[in-house]
Amino acid sequence: MSASDELTLEERGPTALDDVRSWIAAGNSAELAAWLRASDAADVIYTAAQLTDQEREGLLSTLRPDQAADLFELLPEPQRIEALQSMEPGDAAAIVHELASDDQADIISEVENAEEILAALDPEEAAVIRGLADYEWNTAGGLMIAEFFAFPKDLRVGEIVSRLQDAADNGDDYDVQYVYVVDDDSKLAGVLRLRDLLLSPRGRPAEALMLRDPHSVHVDDTLEQLVAFFNDHGFFGAPVLDDEGRLLGVVRASAVREATTERSDSDYSKSQGIVGGEELRSMPLRIRCTRRLSWLSLNIVLNVAAASIIALHQETLEAVIALAVFLPIISDMSGCSGNQAVAVSMRELSLNVARPRDWLRVWRKESLVGIINGLALGLLIGVVAILWQGSPALGVVVGGALALNTVVAVSIGGVVPLLLKGLKLDPALASGPILTTVTDMCGFLLVLSFASYAMDYLR
Amino acid sequence: MSASDELTLEERGPTALDDVRSWIAAGNSAELAAWLRASDAADVIYTAAQLTDQEREGLLSTLRPDQAADLFELLPEPQRIEALQSMEPGDAAAIVHELASDDQADIISEVENAEEILAALDPEEAAVIRGLADYEWNTAGGLMIAEFFAFPKDLRVGEIVSRLQDAADNGDDYDVQYVYVVDDDSKLAGVLRLRDLLLSPRGRPAEALMLRDPHSVHVDDTLEQLVAFFNDHGFFGAPVLDDEGRLLGVVRASAVREATTERSDSDYSKSQGIVGGEELRSMPLRIRCTRRLSWLSLNIVLNVAAASIIALHQETLEAVIALAVFLPIISDMSGCSGNQAVAVSMRELSLNVARPRDWLRVWRKESLVGIINGLALGLLIGVVAILWQGSPALGVVVGGALALNTVVAVSIGGVVPLLLKGLKLDPALASGPILTTVTDMCGFLLVLSFASYAMDYLR
Repeated sequence: MSASDELTLEERGPTALDDVRSWIAAGNSAELAAWLRASDAADVIYTAAQLTDQEREGLLSTLRPDQAADLFELLPEPQRIEALQSMEPGDAAAIVHELASDDQADIISEVENAEEILAALDPEEAAVIRGLADYEWNTAGGLMIAEFFAFPKDLRVGEIVSRLQDAADNGDDYDVQYVYVVDDDSKLAGVLRLRDLLLSPRGRPAEALMLRDPHSVHVDDTLEQLVAFFNDHGFFGAPVLDDEGRLLGVVRASAVREATTERSDSDYSKSQGIVGGEELRSMPLRIRCTRRLSWLSLNIVLNVAAASIIALHQETLEAVIALAVFLPIISDMSGCSGNQAVAVSMRELSLNVARPRDWLRVWRKESLVGIINGLALGLLIGVVAILWQGSPALGVVVGGALALNTVVAVSIGGVVPLLLKGLKLDPALASGPILTTVTDMCGFLLVLSFASYAMDYLR
Repeated sequence: MSASDELTLEERGPTALDDVRSWIAAGNSAELAAWLRASDAADVIYTAAQLTDQEREGLLSTLRPDQAADLFELLPEPQRIEALQSMEPGDAAAIVHELASDDQADIISEVENAEEILAALDPEEAAVIRGLADYEWNTAGGLMIAEFFAFPKDLRVGEIVSRLQDAADNGDDYDVQYVYVVDDDSKLAGVLRLRDLLLSPRGRPAEALMLRDPHSVHVDDTLEQLVAFFNDHGFFGAPVLDDEGRLLGVVRASAVREATTERSDSDYSKSQGIVGGEELRSMPLRIRCTRRLSWLSLNIVLNVAAASIIALHQETLEAVIALAVFLPIISDMSGCSGNQAVAVSMRELSLNVARPRDWLRVWRKESLVGIINGLALGLLIGVVAILWQGSPALGVVVGGALALNTVVAVSIGGVVPLLLKGLKLDPALASGPILTTVTDMCGFLLVLSFASYAMDYLR
């Protein structure tokens, strides 16, 4: 056994990367395909991420379209968009052709050169993609696929099985779980499960075998409704109907779960100030800096506004300089306490156990938490102030201000996401800046006005 | 049409809640079951969340166990745990019996009265649950189900189909997608797809029909590896093998996707200081306060440590009181800039495009962003300082400190999650406090020591 065989995949990473780079440069599609087949998907993703945009594009263009599509589906979205935009429209279209229709619609609605790619596709396929791309991504329409089997009511089991077989022979293998039965107006009449087809005489008509009034979703149903639907039913997919009950597509439970993960990830990123979609370090520096700055610039304006409260009370600060030590602590701790309440509200909204109209109940519940934790934190910081400066008055001023401001921060933090959601604004993006601005202003005001009242005892 | 018919479900909510409450009080299982059948899952979740713990327990105990289990699966985890813990072990066991084995193992490893519930179950079922509960939740073992069909190699299609039929008649309907073929040592030999059974002569043996060397996962595979596996293959499930290749269970793609969402949600909550698992406002006040306080107490200690830098420079502050206005701004803005870099690193780690050993590359990339954004933010705050106090020196001191501290915050923010991950610590939980403590200390130190050097120009 040679030394290199004893290395783990992790340790062999850099070597694999150099190999992949040289194969791309040489246009060696056979070696690249062999590497893809032999590698763990996690390592493929990691290696592809180390490549430059040009190399990644070269990798996709060198592979056979079906192999390129398999790799393409593994890449994070920003890398997929970048690659399609810089490829020849014909090469891009060849990859898009291999994707499932929901993925086709997603990527086409994101890339700048959508029209060129659609023009390079079969017109019928392009029309289907255009139709799907019109729906909002977080609705049943945006998440559904257009690939499904629907047969008339009077077709017999034997014929259905043989058509499925033909489709499989043609490569139209839709990971089929359900087969739908429609009437003459393409309205959904029933559903056939594969196991029913398996266990039934071949001469029976679909109508006799199908489950009638199957569960279905409406094309406008939201992600929250779909999550609840699949939690409730445990199906692999559901037929998507329009207002007239016509069958438009199939939404897969897996697509709904992926969209949920995407939303959670994006809520997390947005709450930390990553706006305008996902950021990867492979993206151009200019885009990364300007996107982050757009959020930071708003924040600095809000920060200056909040700090102006301090500027208005400079004489108090001058008299008791020790207060300056506690201003950042009060600002930061109130932000922490408030953000905990924001996180719980975000979670309750996404779990559907709280709705915007519950703001008063949430406000009452959070106020209680705020009072208890405010007392605890106020006591703590008050004791620190007394021990440090030997001034009981300083302890009371600083501790009292933090206690009160914690109540404000926690109750506002709990309510703000509900109100934003009720106003159809994005709570993940806006809750943080609103919260910290209000709590900073209020906190500075509390500590400095308490201090000016207690000035005789502080000096 | 009466007035109440015109109301949307949302608006009828409170009425439904009162009805549900009175049916629970009266033990009216028929009305409760009818309400469950007629309601949207999203509304059931919302209504159940408005009930008290006792009412929710009453609702579950009143329903037939299979109906109770359907409702149980819709509830958020803290409500599930609370309900099982306060029910009679027999009632709890009846609900647990209805769950899939992975959900059984999850809930049993969370509740305090696990032993009582297991004792009330069939010993064989309890043994399976105990076995599954031993695996880490975020590995293939922890995510797999023990319900699967495995048949010997020489069994014929006709016999397999009839055994599947028998199992379906017995209610052992495992949402079966694949049927496994094992050799005499229960080692996995191959897989049969339902469609293969559908399209094959009934006399053929499994061995002739099965796909050999099927893709499988190892029982210790991590969530990241499973995500990549299912992204790569698009299967609905994969067989889980031990070191000897024996078939232990089946991990479903849906379970992997749910676990991913769970991890994203929990990363978001933890980054905002919600530690020790999920918090819902239906939980007892005592638990909610103490959990949040545990995080806040650590933070206040770190905050005091950072603020001690200010205390050490009081004479500088006393000389130039305007600096006190900018200390909270520098602390907050550096935190914002650093948290953006933390969020991008968290995302790259979970997408598997960055690994701990990439810290140096990340540090270089983030330093660049930090320099550009630091210059922009430093310029902004410097101009504000000059306009406000008419002192160019103050602008240089404050702007220079923020610019430099932004570089520190952004580069540390990018690297800290990778280092924590490399040390097998939880980056979601620990990155924030580490980041803000370092950036606060460094920021205060920068602005106050710049000021003391420039004192002649500032006064």
